[in-house]
Amino acid sequence: MALKDSLSQLKDTVSDTVRDKTSAVRGADLGRKQWVFSAGFAPSQSTGAEPEFTSRNTLCLLNTSAAPVCVSVTVFHADREPVGPYEILVEPQRVKHQRINDLIEPEAVPLDAPYGLVLDADGPVVAQLLYLDSRGGNLAVSHLNPVPLD
Amino acid sequence: MALKDSLSQLKDTVSDTVRDKTSAVRGADLGRKQWVFSAGFAPSQSTGAEPEFTSRNTLCLLNTSAAPVCVSVTVFHADREPVGPYEILVEPQRVKHQRINDLIEPEAVPLDAPYGLVLDADGPVVAQLLYLDSRGGNLAVSHLNPVPLD
Amino acid sequence: MALKDSLSQLKDTVSDTVRDKTSAVRGADLGRKQWVFSAGFAPSQSTGAEPEFTSRNTLCLLNTSAAPVCVSVTVFHADREPVGPYEILVEPQRVKHQRINDLIEPEAVPLDAPYGLVLDADGPVVAQLLYLDSRGGNLAVSHLNPVPLD
Amino acid sequence: MALKDSLSQLKDTVSDTVRDKTSAVRGADLGRKQWVFSAGFAPSQSTGAEPEFTSRNTLCLLNTSAAPVCVSVTVFHADREPVGPYEILVEPQRVKHQRINDLIEPEAVPLDAPYGLVLDADGPVVAQLLYLDSRGGNLAVSHLNPVPLD
Repeated sequence: MALKDSLSQLKDTVSDTVRDKTSAVRGADLGRKQWVFSAGFAPSQSTGAEPEFTSRNTLCLLNTSAAPVCVSVTVFHADREPVGPYEILVEPQRVKHQRINDLIEPEAVPLDAPYGLVLDADGPVVAQLLYLDSRGGNLAVSHLNPVPLD
Repeated sequence: MALKDSLSQLKDTVSDTVRDKTSAVRGADLGRKQWVFSAGFAPSQSTGAEPEFTSRNTLCLLNTSAAPVCVSVTVFHADREPVGPYEILVEPQRVKHQRINDLIEPEAVPLDAPYGLVLDADGPVVAQLLYLDSRGGNLAVSHLNPVPLD
Repeated sequence: MALKDSLSQLKDTVSDTVRDKTSAVRGADLGRKQWVFSAGFAPSQSTGAEPEFTSRNTLCLLNTSAAPVCVSVTVFHADREPVGPYEILVEPQRVKHQRINDLIEPEAVPLDAPYGLVLDADGPVVAQLLYLDSRGGNLAVSHLNPVPLD
Repeated sequence: MALKDSLSQLKDTVSDTVRDKTSAVRGADLGRKQWVFSAGFAPSQSTGAEPEFTSRNTLCLLNTSAAPVCVSVTVFHADREPVGPYEILVEPQRVKHQRINDLIEPEAVPLDAPYGLVLDADGPVVAQLLYLDSRGGNLAVSHLNPVPLD
């Protein structure tokens, strides 16, 4: 039993060391360079005070690295060619919550229409999507992760 | 039978090899061929204007590839055999938000009843599920990713 | 360089073949045997008609395999020892949406209190969690995937 | 180059082997030591009874292991340096639902402002995030998983 425990502890130590070193090398560069969402949508109508209650889709980006990251977003539509890239700069060690409907270059993303988002970043970032809908005279809120790829 | 299986396996291998190479070339074949949801449900009742406020479950599909993708959906029920395939065609480089309750072949998916969804696509797609519930006189919205497999 | 690429491609092909075969053998046994949620909670209060609008936490289970699956649930609490196993049987090729607060053996899961869930199944299942809250005189709904474990 | 690659592969193999064995030996240490959320936000305003209806962001932590786990949280802001660590102790085999806005050391996390969260734990934990918003005179609730890393 004592031997088994010792072996187990040794194994734990090795495992932690290997993981820590990997982590130490990569530092705080958490995330990936590519993320995808298929459930994009933002209602054109809202009720209540602006801007808190304005219906929207907001891309929540986190850059934990020491360098700025440029996120290139391609917007896929239901009935026409994809549009992009929309470029979002996220400063080092900052979070940026970017309302999709404030993206106007190369063109505004239509409201009341389904879209998909593909993010290609030049460094690792973390992305989540917020949906806020105040059309019904009340607040509906939902958060969505990117789809798990591999 | 053995020959058929061998041929089928050979076809899969070739297909995968081709996809891997294609993917390297084209870049944009994002997603997987199989996705699963266990929390399917759509209320029969709604309040407010149609169709925006109609209670529903909507499958949000994104095909970033250059070829059309056919998604075969099998619907699992609580108390009877699975039903399917329901076929959804997603055009190349398009998003498609498909209300589950608009699927009527081979038969309508019952409202007010739990179901699970297994998606098998003939090419990589991205899938997320939207739930909208206006029964309570207000809007409740939730988004759900497929379960992380592997 | 050319040799290295060839080796790399060979490795990929082998890897894909192995995965395909595994997948072919497992057939429709989708999911995993273990899932975890840390955000469990069910309000004791509700408004509106029962049972549709009763506040709740519901575990949505899908068994795509040809054999029944028994899911053993351990409930972790904030201030006392874990309780379990709660056993849920999911018939072959069926979905089961199990309200947590209908689990009474070995004891009822307290309302208005945080809990975590660990699921250990004797076969692969898919699990997602539904939260419905009608306390506020309106309906709030949220869906949650299990945490992604390796 | 070849030597470096060989070493790297060897390290990966060792690391995987160690992890596999560790997991088999330790049984219930579910989760990971690092988790990330980019969609942090808590409204300053609420309606309805406190504390049930107080708008909030709550970190739901589960420690299934036999030892206490200390979770160090770093909060990333939109316009200034990250702040932390905030330390949360989760007792063995307990769940802890920690309201972000109750964290006051080293400083309170601002309301009505976007933030990101990086969790570094000294043992494996499971983390999910709850969002509750009662600003609109009704309840909106959403749950969010950490982003899938690797």
